[in-house]
This record gives sequence, C-alpha cells and structure tokens, in this order.
Amino acid sequence: MTEGKKALLVMGCPEVPVQMSIAVYLAQKLRKAGYDVTVAGTDAAVKLLRVADFDSYYVQKTVDLDQIIPEIVEKKIDFDLCFAFMHSDAGMTYGATFSAISRAKLYAVVFGKNAEELAKTIDYPAEKIVAKATHNPTPLKNKIDRVIL
Amino acid sequence: MTEGKKALLVMGCPEVPVQMSIAVYLAQKLRKAGYDVTVAGTDAAVKLLRVADFDSYYVQKTVDLDQIIPEIVEKKIDFDLCFAFMHSDAGMTYGATFSAISRAKLYAVVFGKNAEELAKTIDYPAEKIVAKATHNPTPLKNKIDRVIL
Repeated sequence: MTEGKKALLVMGCPEVPVQMSIAVYLAQKLRKAGYDVTVAGTDAAVKLLRVADFDSYYVQKTVDLDQIIPEIVEKKIDFDLCFAFMHSDAGMTYGATFSAISRAKLYAVVFGKNAEELAKTIDYPAEKIVAKATHNPTPLKNKIDRVIL
Repeated sequence: MTEGKKALLVMGCPEVPVQMSIAVYLAQKLRKAGYDVTVAGTDAAVKLLRVADFDSYYVQKTVDLDQIIPEIVEKKIDFDLCFAFMHSDAGMTYGATFSAISRAKLYAVVFGKNAEELAKTIDYPAEKIVAKATHNPTPLKNKIDRVIL
C-alpha cells in the first residue's frame, strides 16, 4: 500500500530538456501508484512546468526549492520517496542535501551528456537511475519504468 | 468562428527549454479557441512532448516534421495558422519553409538569448512574437497571450 505516502521530485536548473518531460511523467506515474506527489524546483523549472501543465492535470503541487529545504530541515514536512534530478556538478549538491536532511528513500536521477561520470561521484546512499539522455527522453524513461512499475 | 479551422505548431531542436512548455500551452489555448491543432517537431521534440503529455491531455495530434513538410508540399494537407518556433539560425529555416509551402497565416515565435537579432533576419511575411526567454517561459507566454486571446 502506498496510500498516504508522500513523494518529492526535485528539479534543478532546466537547461537539459529531458528534465521537465521526465519529471511530469514520473509525477503522474507516482500519483497513479497512490503517492501524494510534490514537485520542487528552481524558479525557472517550476514556471516551465506550470506553463506546460497549465490545468494541473499531471502535477498538482509545486514548490520552490528554497522554500521546501528549510521546511524539511525544520521537520515541518518530510517525504517517503525523493527523486533528485541532476545533470551538472551544481545539481549533484541537491542529492547530497536531500540525503542529509530527509528520511526519504533517495533516488538519484542522473542525466545529460556526462551522466555516467556524474553518477560515479555520488557518495551518499541513493538508488541511481542513470541515462545519457539530453534531448531524447526515451533512455531515461525506460530506466524509470524499470524502477517504478 | 474558428470551428473547423486548423493550426500547426512547428517545434525545432528542443535545446532551449521554453519551447516545449510554450508549445503545449499554445496548443491548448488554440484548441480551447476552437482550432484543430497539430504539433510538428523534430524526433526529439515530439518525444519530449509525448512523454510530458503522456495522456494526450493537452496535445492530441503530433507529427514528425519530415512527414508533414512533404504532405503540405503535395497539397495533401494545409493549415489556417502556423506557429513556427525558432531560436537558432537552423530553426529560422523552418519559418521560411512554411512561409513558402503553406497558405497558413504564419507566426514566427522567436526565443532564446539571440531572439531579437534572429527576428530581424526574418524576410518573409510573418507576425513576429519575440522574447529573450530561454529558461523562464513567462516573457514569451505574455507575448503569446497578447496575440492569442
């Protein structure tokens, strides 16, 4: 049973196009599996999602990263699962942050042209979902479909 | 009355993140205004859209650019409106192509960091919708909202 369980998706800077497609896809997949899903992101990432999903058909809850991090630190909120999207050194720090502050089971979703090298640098407990995807979402979608049924 | 009228959206290479968000937003806006909407794009652009809009809630018809161009040339299909998204020199050729082959009223949606310079190079009849947006979709969305009520 996943009813009542909470999942957080964390989007970094939206410069690699696959991030938003996969985040929306994964959010819906988790919701259909019974999770209460929140998508956090940088200001631009959240705006891109809100314009694309204008009717909130796929994603009902979005929140700014700068808002959710203190709330987790202060134990006002926490999640059962956390998927951190990363494609750059800067993005890698989000995974480390959520690993440190949240009790959620952490999934590191690593993509972009340096995905494999970046994934090797993850030194905190996380299930890694890694694909070299930048413009074509299919490799990353297939990896996600293997982890989340 | 726009009932029965057809609109085509043309997406180029998806490297600038605002393209997909704005294309999905505009597609829905045109559909709500009564247009039969088709979204054409490169293979990666269409895949990104299909993964993000997995239930076809916002976009019902997608087609590969390489398929639709010959169909318009051979007069098997045509549109009343055509919105060509462009953010690079390569993308600018799509606008010129659709200007040449289609009888549709053409809108050149020009974005990315060189949007203003690119827009000046358009030398075919087109209504220009221009915003420097790359990661933040709001400037381009606002321009579109002024053109399409």
